Amino acid sequence: MESIRQRISVPFGYDVHFTSDLFRAGNPLLASLADRTYRMLCVIDSGVAEAHPSLAGRIEEHCRDQELQLAAPPIVVPGGERVKNTHQYVDALHAAIFEFAICRHSYLMAVGGGAVLDMAGYAAATAHRGVRLIRLPTTVLSQNDSGVGVKNGINAFGRKNFLGAFAPPHAVINDFEFLTTLHARDWRAGTAEAVKVALIKDATFFDFLENEAAALAARDMRPMQRLIAHCAGMHVRHIQSSGDPFETGSSRPLDFGHWAAHKLEQLTNYELRHGEAVAIGIALDTTYSYLAGLLDETGWRRTIGLLTALGFDLSLPEGSLLPDRDNPRSLLSGLKEFREHLGGPLTVMLLKRIGEAVEVNEMSNELLLESARLLHEAVRDSRCNPVEARNQ
Amino acid sequence: MESIRQRISVPFGYDVHFTSDLFRAGNPLLASLADRTYRMLCVIDSGVAEAHPSLAGRIEEHCRDQELQLAAPPIVVPGGERVKNTHQYVDALHAAIFEFAICRHSYLMAVGGGAVLDMAGYAAATAHRGVRLIRLPTTVLSQNDSGVGVKNGINAFGRKNFLGAFAPPHAVINDFEFLTTLHARDWRAGTAEAVKVALIKDATFFDFLENEAAALAARDMRPMQRLIAHCAGMHVRHIQSSGDPFETGSSRPLDFGHWAAHKLEQLTNYELRHGEAVAIGIALDTTYSYLAGLLDETGWRRTIGLLTALGFDLSLPEGSLLPDRDNPRSLLSGLKEFREHLGGPLTVMLLKRIGEAVEVNEMSNELLLESARLLHEAVRDSRCNPVEARNQ
Repeated sequence: MESIRQRISVPFGYDVHFTSDLFRAGNPLLASLADRTYRMLCVIDSGVAEAHPSLAGRIEEHCRDQELQLAAPPIVVPGGERVKNTHQYVDALHAAIFEFAICRHSYLMAVGGGAVLDMAGYAAATAHRGVRLIRLPTTVLSQNDSGVGVKNGINAFGRKNFLGAFAPPHAVINDFEFLTTLHARDWRAGTAEAVKVALIKDATFFDFLENEAAALAARDMRPMQRLIAHCAGMHVRHIQSSGDPFETGSSRPLDFGHWAAHKLEQLTNYELRHGEAVAIGIALDTTYSYLAGLLDETGWRRTIGLLTALGFDLSLPEGSLLPDRDNPRSLLSGLKEFREHLGGPLTVMLLKRIGEAVEVNEMSNELLLESARLLHEAVRDSRCNPVEARNQ
Repeated sequence: MESIRQRISVPFGYDVHFTSDLFRAGNPLLASLADRTYRMLCVIDSGVAEAHPSLAGRIEEHCRDQELQLAAPPIVVPGGERVKNTHQYVDALHAAIFEFAICRHSYLMAVGGGAVLDMAGYAAATAHRGVRLIRLPTTVLSQNDSGVGVKNGINAFGRKNFLGAFAPPHAVINDFEFLTTLHARDWRAGTAEAVKVALIKDATFFDFLENEAAALAARDMRPMQRLIAHCAGMHVRHIQSSGDPFETGSSRPLDFGHWAAHKLEQLTNYELRHGEAVAIGIALDTTYSYLAGLLDETGWRRTIGLLTALGFDLSLPEGSLLPDRDNPRSLLSGLKEFREHLGGPLTVMLLKRIGEAVEVNEMSNELLLESARLLHEAVRDSRCNPVEARNQ
């Protein structure tokens, strides 16, 4: 009997909008994105709720004014990685979706940092096989990177994003107002993905970051808005042009520095922010690229210099660089875990020059340990005091 | 600041293969579908494992012979809806995927009825944001319908498929050998979706079913293979041509009879098989179509006659037709729940004639109660003894 061939192409579309103070009276943006005949449920990151005590009330008022059907008062969940380290918040959102009769055409609006958006996105993607997700990223990192993409997830078995789905959102709204109340660490952490994308794809953007590093570190909103819009656009276009938006193949050119970053987050029990870990991962792989003879010294120094000028502490956590790749307490085991998560042979991105990456399928333990030593010296010699910076 | 527009189209492809005795020595099919460089995990429906006590061993032997990397002995999970009524089996598969280092390019092969495939498919879709799923449907129903589609799911909050995802499989293998050991109820139950699709789309196929009803009821394998191949092909093409394979819109023309079927399964605590419930749902909505003046009497009689000739018991469970649509103990509440699950306004499919359906947005309680009474009389008057048939 002949086989039956199935070939389908599934279209997805969403827009990333920019605004300031989405919930102010008369801001028409939210209502323009949501069909009033369907209900809406809202979940808020506790960090955002604390920084904006009137937010839940303002959302309720805004929905009343705009005649949007808010099905229940906003639900507050913990901010940061702890919301992803258990199944309980996903379960709670599923229960709320059930209780408040949110259907597949109704909305879950998630307001928060990347972790809350990831968790809420996973809950939305799996209830009724997908309810509509409106993301309101509130951090630099989520506005310029994770919040505008097609992924979600929670951690399990000690592995970052072990559970999740590919599920494009209904819409993304980047509200710059939320950035004004960010902690210094979160403001800074978000710039790491900008450095990453500049390093692997966009030398001109790297120049921009170098020129604006002091202003960015001083929390100047103007260059930050440009940084976010530029990165978000690059991220969206990368997904568009990859030919493989749901990553069924092995090419993932936006993951520079991430094998180490994921493992560093886990090793520090998520004490390091994702962006802080990415900055260290970038620094390590840039140093490795230099020592491997791929990148010249100027490129290496400019990269470490930019990360330092942005205020990142690039020290590796004490004892994280045990030489044994099979030891799960060693940073090096992150390479194995990264390969398992992505599937296929190990593919790690390194740098050829600022603005251009190259893929390799192996990293040498010895050279990694040497990179860590060199990075350690460079950090020690730098004029920036990273410990002070981290504790701001 | 201008919005960023994201428009992507994600390609998916898989084939539905037919074979007999997949794991016999020298059958090259499985090895032709799986890349030997990746690992494979296998999960088996307990019903199948009991009917084929040597299956797990044969799978291990076959993988050894074909040099496929089976990562662990096959895992046996309960068959039937109970495997979907809890999160525990999904959790167990996630744990196995973690333990045996199944990556995104590795395979989960699921052998079983629709419920096991649904549960395993959900676990596969959500681990690493999707590991490759090879489905081996072992029942008539899963070979001709659910097993060849793009959905998965488990039940939660008392709602069928409340949790799940759209996730096309890597491949589907319909092995006719498994049908020989099916219980009579499962053999029969699977024909309900064939009657459904014939009624709404294919009058010629309805004629075929009428002609072969006695042979099908007598477990003749030849017409059953034709039935399965025809239905599977229609299901695959429907997904292809719908323009909306992940059902983001409201059109779901293959769901005839299903609002009642889902609710009947729940009301009988899944004592009714899905196909048995679908047969009753079809009978009820066909009777409603007749009483509403949409379908002529001959069409109605032929439909009830075919379902009866196939051996279905079309009696509604005692007390299921309470007149109050808001009472969750009433079948009528299934309309509301169906609407919520699909999203959007209520859309129910009824019959215009055999082979042609029509959509309506409302059903009258009174006419539904009258349809149930008329169906009850028709069943009582039929020569078939449905109670005996069900207990075979």
